[in-house]
Amino acid sequence: MQQSTITDIQDYMDQTGAAARTAARALARASAAQKNQALLAMAGALDQARVQLAAANRADLEAGEAKGLDAALLDRLELTPARIDAMIEGLTQIAALPDPIGAITDLNYRPSGIQVGRMRVPLGVVGIIYESRPNVTADAAALCLKSGNASLLRGGSEAFHSNQAIAECIRLGLEQAGLPLEAVQVIATTDRAAVGAMLSCPEYVDVIIPRGGKGLIERISREARMPVIKHLDGICHVYIDDQADLDKAFAIAMNAKTQRFGTCNTLETLLVAEGVAANVLPRLATALTEKGVELRGCAETCRLVPKATPATEDDWDTEYLAPILSIRVVSGLDAAIDHIERHSSRHTDSIVTEDYSRARRFLREVDSSSVMVNASTRFADGFEYGLGAEIGISTDKFHARGPVGLEGLTSQKFIVLGDGQVRG
Amino acid sequence: MQQSTITDIQDYMDQTGAAARTAARALARASAAQKNQALLAMAGALDQARVQLAAANRADLEAGEAKGLDAALLDRLELTPARIDAMIEGLTQIAALPDPIGAITDLNYRPSGIQVGRMRVPLGVVGIIYESRPNVTADAAALCLKSGNASLLRGGSEAFHSNQAIAECIRLGLEQAGLPLEAVQVIATTDRAAVGAMLSCPEYVDVIIPRGGKGLIERISREARMPVIKHLDGICHVYIDDQADLDKAFAIAMNAKTQRFGTCNTLETLLVAEGVAANVLPRLATALTEKGVELRGCAETCRLVPKATPATEDDWDTEYLAPILSIRVVSGLDAAIDHIERHSSRHTDSIVTEDYSRARRFLREVDSSSVMVNASTRFADGFEYGLGAEIGISTDKFHARGPVGLEGLTSQKFIVLGDGQVRG
Repeated sequence: MQQSTITDIQDYMDQTGAAARTAARALARASAAQKNQALLAMAGALDQARVQLAAANRADLEAGEAKGLDAALLDRLELTPARIDAMIEGLTQIAALPDPIGAITDLNYRPSGIQVGRMRVPLGVVGIIYESRPNVTADAAALCLKSGNASLLRGGSEAFHSNQAIAECIRLGLEQAGLPLEAVQVIATTDRAAVGAMLSCPEYVDVIIPRGGKGLIERISREARMPVIKHLDGICHVYIDDQADLDKAFAIAMNAKTQRFGTCNTLETLLVAEGVAANVLPRLATALTEKGVELRGCAETCRLVPKATPATEDDWDTEYLAPILSIRVVSGLDAAIDHIERHSSRHTDSIVTEDYSRARRFLREVDSSSVMVNASTRFADGFEYGLGAEIGISTDKFHARGPVGLEGLTSQKFIVLGDGQVRG
Repeated sequence: MQQSTITDIQDYMDQTGAAARTAARALARASAAQKNQALLAMAGALDQARVQLAAANRADLEAGEAKGLDAALLDRLELTPARIDAMIEGLTQIAALPDPIGAITDLNYRPSGIQVGRMRVPLGVVGIIYESRPNVTADAAALCLKSGNASLLRGGSEAFHSNQAIAECIRLGLEQAGLPLEAVQVIATTDRAAVGAMLSCPEYVDVIIPRGGKGLIERISREARMPVIKHLDGICHVYIDDQADLDKAFAIAMNAKTQRFGTCNTLETLLVAEGVAANVLPRLATALTEKGVELRGCAETCRLVPKATPATEDDWDTEYLAPILSIRVVSGLDAAIDHIERHSSRHTDSIVTEDYSRARRFLREVDSSSVMVNASTRFADGFEYGLGAEIGISTDKFHARGPVGLEGLTSQKFIVLGDGQVRG
């Protein structure tokens, strides 16, 4: 459907939703071979459509420049040849992953003679609402398709032409594999009312996944009448225990803070046991400052590191997404866990220690979606965890938690195999 | 806190919620031994308090009679000695179940050298809102406690004194095991504003489980600002295929409909393949009528079974919870699946067939929380499935689906064990 022909948004979204629901039934029954064929055909179509993709993307970029979008947003919007390669590679990798759907686990005989097990099934229709990166269109469509879900994709209005060009490649892939074209629908209007309509119809959409800034995610969580898979903040901690191997501690803190500044699994607050603070902080501070990191510390930190400025209470609750690190010297493990309990966004927290019992306590007691011992928080990622791909990271506890791959887009039903058994 | 002293409901619920959140942290760290000790001490306290329980229950029953409550409600309200025995037995059984918390699965090395696995953790604070049965107080408290969750229990106002008497036994058990008394809190007011306050504070309550009639569940689902584990309807189907063993079909249909009329896993609509309808329906109709079951059928059913009255379209969407059965003759498997797709409440549906391929298709294609082959729908139950206990049955797909035992009250976090690894 062309954007220009859409006049009644509610009516368009109703049609789109109903078509997604019908397609979801067909997709739930699709074989792994058919889904993989579609994914590889989409990859092929993207490769063939490089000229059209570049032209559509140029239209978006020019409109964005005319509207005065900032450089960071224009950068996210750009579909470079390397990013098209990455989309194609992503589709190929998802095709190579095992099909989770239909897998039966724990099928055991019960005293009554019935066998009870669980079969993995799709969620149904997944709605994805995202901002400027057009590559999300291909990635999200592929993950939903492989997990047997129909998808409704609503990208940022500034990427409209790029997303529609990618949608055309997705349609070609679905067609080639004989799957319903409504299995993946990229919303063909930039009207914001379409988002409202999507969030208000649980009869058509089983789950919403927002991808973007905190403002977007908060608004969607508030308005959605169906479950939302999301994370809001990544306020991640590394705690350097006084039984830490200080070389490991140095390497982990440096990597967690400086490998990339703007990711959700980047270190934001470093906690250091007072027993090793004098030993570890000056050296770390020098190296961090060399990397351009601004340091904000507690009183003890400022005493040990003169170039640090005093941290305010707000610093402990801030996700900088920038070359800034807050540092606090704590009395030991209990104080570290207590600080994390009060200030962590429950994304990823790591302890550096060689002490067995403290490592064990940290793993059990810290209530975050990823809890680590002697590893950089930067590892919190679906690829690094072996999920093959990720649609996001959930900091909620309900349903999926942590990096969400194919499994997080599925559910399990019970199956019962009998031989005429009745209940006594 | 005494009901008479509670004047500001919002303030009381804020205090209760904050105390639950604090207790939840302690419970998450409690050992299996400590939780089991509390459960067994609660069982002992209930056994010691039979006189007090009977007196409190008598107060509720007398007030209920004075208010003119109907006989069914008064029956549900009554705490007979047998029901007290059942509560004690329930607590003892839950103590004997394995502790799900802390269990680590899938701990595997990744190419980077880190080990990644999952650890099972509690959800946090579980709110349970239920109606007249006071025994739910002990059952729900025990399941939440064993799964490491703090609980807020809000029972029906007609059971207020009974619930408070049970709460006293729970408190004694917690005290004996050295667990925080706020780990289980039975709301000490019958003011309905307490329910509203509970549903509006996701900062204190992680999940709500309503137990009761459809009206209660719909209202709570609409108002709750946190996830809800629920089922609304149990419109369960048995499909008798033309390749069915007709003796099994007869036994399963009779058991599914008549073993108990008022349960959510009771058969409500029987589907029969036209090839065997003339063979199976008259015999079944006679036996069902003998059990007092009223039959409502499609035109073909009415032709084969003269005592059946014509079913309306509404019948296919009705959970009778009564000795009424709707019957439809269908052309075969596809028509049966199609009927189930349109009318099932996605609780439990069963096929009776000896045909391997049809059984396989039914299992894969029917999208219900329990899908069965050659077994009575009455088996859909946490005990029959080997979960040891159940807090309810979920017909949603998100998080838990089907009978919800201890596992449904938990989540999994990722754990990462490293040796100083950083991301390259």
